[in-house]
Amino acid sequence: MSNQELEELRAKVDEINLQLLHLINKRAEIIQEIGNIKTKQGMPRFDPIREREMIDKIRANNNGPFDDNTILHLFKQIFKASLDLQEVDNNKKLLV
Amino acid sequence: MSNQELEELRAKVDEINLQLLHLINKRAEIIQEIGNIKTKQGMPRFDPIREREMIDKIRANNNGPFDDNTILHLFKQIFKASLDLQEVDNNKKLLV
Repeated sequence: MSNQELEELRAKVDEINLQLLHLINKRAEIIQEIGNIKTKQGMPRFDPIREREMIDKIRANNNGPFDDNTILHLFKQIFKASLDLQEVDNNKKLLV
Repeated sequence: MSNQELEELRAKVDEINLQLLHLINKRAEIIQEIGNIKTKQGMPRFDPIREREMIDKIRANNNGPFDDNTILHLFKQIFKASLDLQEVDNNKKLLV
């Protein structure tokens, strides 16, 4: 009985993993669009004020079980990966 | 005009951030449930075969723009945070 319960919970985790995957990539696409607009306007890609604003909103909406520090650590990894992706895009543009 | 576009894209990112936050915490709750079942059955919390299975499913469904390595790096941080959360839960149980 518990094994069936375990399998059901694992199936839920797999479903959430795929939703997370979709959202993380969707987020990266939008960040790329933002990067393109910024490039056209000659604005820097990284905006510490905007990052602070995102962090404040995330923190204000965190109801656990993860504490704020863990959540912010995870999001900072996502932010960093998005910036790195833009660096790669930029370098590609410089090469062509 | 582009500034309005920028604001709209930023609003989309904020919305995705909150969806990610919700899913990351929801995932942690389910992992806690799985951990409780495993404890009752005397099974170890960390299961490398199950982690490999999750990673394979995530990789198979990744359509970018993030490459597999970046996606797996992000998910491994989420996996690790979930295991750490269970350690904290376990220590709390040992203290009472």
